[in-house]
Amino acid sequence: MAMKPMKAFLGLEEGMRIIMDAVRPIDRTERVALLEAVGRVLAEEVTAAMDVPPFPRAAMDGYAVKAQDTFEAGNFSPAILDLIEVIHAAEIATKEVRPGACIQVATGSPMPAGADAVVIVEDTELDGAKVKVYKPVYPRQNASPLGEDIKQGSRVLAPGTLLDPSKIGVLAALGYQKAAVYQKPQVAVIPSGNEIVVPGDPLSPGKIYDINSYTLSALITQNGGLPRIFPVMKDTLESVTSTIREALSFDLILISGGSSVGERDMMVEAVERMGEVKFHGIAVKPGKPTLCGIVEGHLVLGMPGYPTSCLTNGYGMLAPALRKMARLRTRSLAAVKAPMARRYTSTIGRHQYLPVRLESGEVHPVFKESGAITSMADAEGYIEIPANVDLVEKGELVDVLLF
Amino acid sequence: MAMKPMKAFLGLEEGMRIIMDAVRPIDRTERVALLEAVGRVLAEEVTAAMDVPPFPRAAMDGYAVKAQDTFEAGNFSPAILDLIEVIHAAEIATKEVRPGACIQVATGSPMPAGADAVVIVEDTELDGAKVKVYKPVYPRQNASPLGEDIKQGSRVLAPGTLLDPSKIGVLAALGYQKAAVYQKPQVAVIPSGNEIVVPGDPLSPGKIYDINSYTLSALITQNGGLPRIFPVMKDTLESVTSTIREALSFDLILISGGSSVGERDMMVEAVERMGEVKFHGIAVKPGKPTLCGIVEGHLVLGMPGYPTSCLTNGYGMLAPALRKMARLRTRSLAAVKAPMARRYTSTIGRHQYLPVRLESGEVHPVFKESGAITSMADAEGYIEIPANVDLVEKGELVDVLLF
Repeated sequence: MAMKPMKAFLGLEEGMRIIMDAVRPIDRTERVALLEAVGRVLAEEVTAAMDVPPFPRAAMDGYAVKAQDTFEAGNFSPAILDLIEVIHAAEIATKEVRPGACIQVATGSPMPAGADAVVIVEDTELDGAKVKVYKPVYPRQNASPLGEDIKQGSRVLAPGTLLDPSKIGVLAALGYQKAAVYQKPQVAVIPSGNEIVVPGDPLSPGKIYDINSYTLSALITQNGGLPRIFPVMKDTLESVTSTIREALSFDLILISGGSSVGERDMMVEAVERMGEVKFHGIAVKPGKPTLCGIVEGHLVLGMPGYPTSCLTNGYGMLAPALRKMARLRTRSLAAVKAPMARRYTSTIGRHQYLPVRLESGEVHPVFKESGAITSMADAEGYIEIPANVDLVEKGELVDVLLF
Repeated sequence: MAMKPMKAFLGLEEGMRIIMDAVRPIDRTERVALLEAVGRVLAEEVTAAMDVPPFPRAAMDGYAVKAQDTFEAGNFSPAILDLIEVIHAAEIATKEVRPGACIQVATGSPMPAGADAVVIVEDTELDGAKVKVYKPVYPRQNASPLGEDIKQGSRVLAPGTLLDPSKIGVLAALGYQKAAVYQKPQVAVIPSGNEIVVPGDPLSPGKIYDINSYTLSALITQNGGLPRIFPVMKDTLESVTSTIREALSFDLILISGGSSVGERDMMVEAVERMGEVKFHGIAVKPGKPTLCGIVEGHLVLGMPGYPTSCLTNGYGMLAPALRKMARLRTRSLAAVKAPMARRYTSTIGRHQYLPVRLESGEVHPVFKESGAITSMADAEGYIEIPANVDLVEKGELVDVLLF
């Protein structure tokens, strides 16, 4: 086996530009039930086919009146009106409110014909078939006109809208049972490496369990994608080529692992034969041995084999690409500013993701080595150290991005 | 019908204390596949049954050596070693590294017997069956000891841990196919009100579509719960009582709607008969007509019938209670500080949730009225105005909590 050292590699910004340029928002749509639509992205223009509310209605419990009848009312000189009918929320008054009359209504009742305002019950006194009104109302007070919330014919939601609870409410208000949403990007997650075994299977000497397919799938799920883990790919050019070909029915192809230079060279060769290698190696730490290619319009990312490198690259590079495909806003991890607990030396020329914990208000690096998943699992978040910085002093304030 | 005005009501803090005291974290557990476990809360203590890695391994591509053989090596005086074997990632060396010998290894290869370090390929030159080493290594350099990541017998994850991608990775590393997680709180969402119709069903005069069951269900899903929408409950004491009884198999009972005082009084009566009313009416705006009761240990919340009131209470009161039940950290909505676009007058004595939009960096209130779902759907977030503040000046900096 000839071992070639990794070639010169790209800066993070340039690498991200290439990755983001290589992916497009998914155009395929599907219809999902309203209850499944939260967190999805609307794929249709929603124009109101009806008014909401579909009738003028009482906005308070009380008495529907002609406002004019109450103008002279006061605490010591109530307007006295005839109570001619009582209706509940869903009932339609059979009578019309004429001068001197009123109809008892509940919040949500359709406004009786002839009435133009509601006197709230607190400002009245019921006296047999008479209602004493102690306070004037102005026309339309406590009465919602037809279409006050949503006017028939108005455009209420545009394609690309993230369906949060209030948007789901708008769809329900208009009688929607389902909504058209963009499909989630489908991601092929291909574990590679002869040493890799599916978790739970027997572990013969020299073998380890597949970590990266699971961390990546979890990250994909969190960022609006649908992961599908492939069987472990063999380390042969034929196997790599045929697996990538099979994965072309997915929107994005991730190869996790291939940790050695030899395996990596094989992936590079397969991608070169089938499409184009955009870069191989990127100036981040950990995560340098990242491969980026395009095969028949599909972004192919060869992620580092080491679990921490793989996952930090997942947060830094994969998640933004996925969110663009899923039409989700860039997720900003919550940030906390805190002082470093100790001096930390970084590598000049590489953008570093440093996993950290917060203890007693101080930032402690917990990075063991990029091969250790606990470098990430023991962390609460990470700090980023730009490529042109090689030292973070003890006590220096840093931004911790929390997972 | 006798209409009783709403009684004196509680402050938000006191109300929240009552609600939070009334709910407990769910103790029931279930086993889910690793791929479904992201975002769930671990319900078992995970103790490592194996070492990770399960063998000492090469951390780089290169040559496994006895470090001592390289101590004198330099750019102009390489150490020259016999290449006695070549192994790949999953292979076990058949030979032992004796003084003066080396074995070619790939990242992840089990360390051959006798070797205590790896010289990276970049610092060597292959010359037939000889390897020239141009740089010394110290013992254990580029070699990961057995259990470096996770030591057999160590406690790696505690119950209550949120399973994010890195934690899923730890489980995979240990060979887990499934994990025990706490069950999601099951929430009965009971629409009430004779005027309420299920979205999509025909809408006869005086009727409107059910909004609240859908906004609440979406919010429940976002906060780790499992909603189940009940059929629309009839406005009779018998119906309210029997529906609550049926819902006692759920962890939390929400009644959405019952917008009129009459309907609300019926709920109060039903809860009083079956358990205890903790409060009825709370000093928030919108959202005042909120009912809180406990029936056979279950929190029963009667949410306001108006969609905006219902949803702001959902964010403010329901979500924290649900997250406690689901054992999730309090979700803090991302906040943005920005100046008010105009003066806004609030109500003294009530804690206000004011839906707003950000336009040109300024905060615009978009609240129409609490009956309008678009009061929320047109908003990007909300500001909170404490009960003791009645005026927010134009230009005043406020914290916008983004949905």
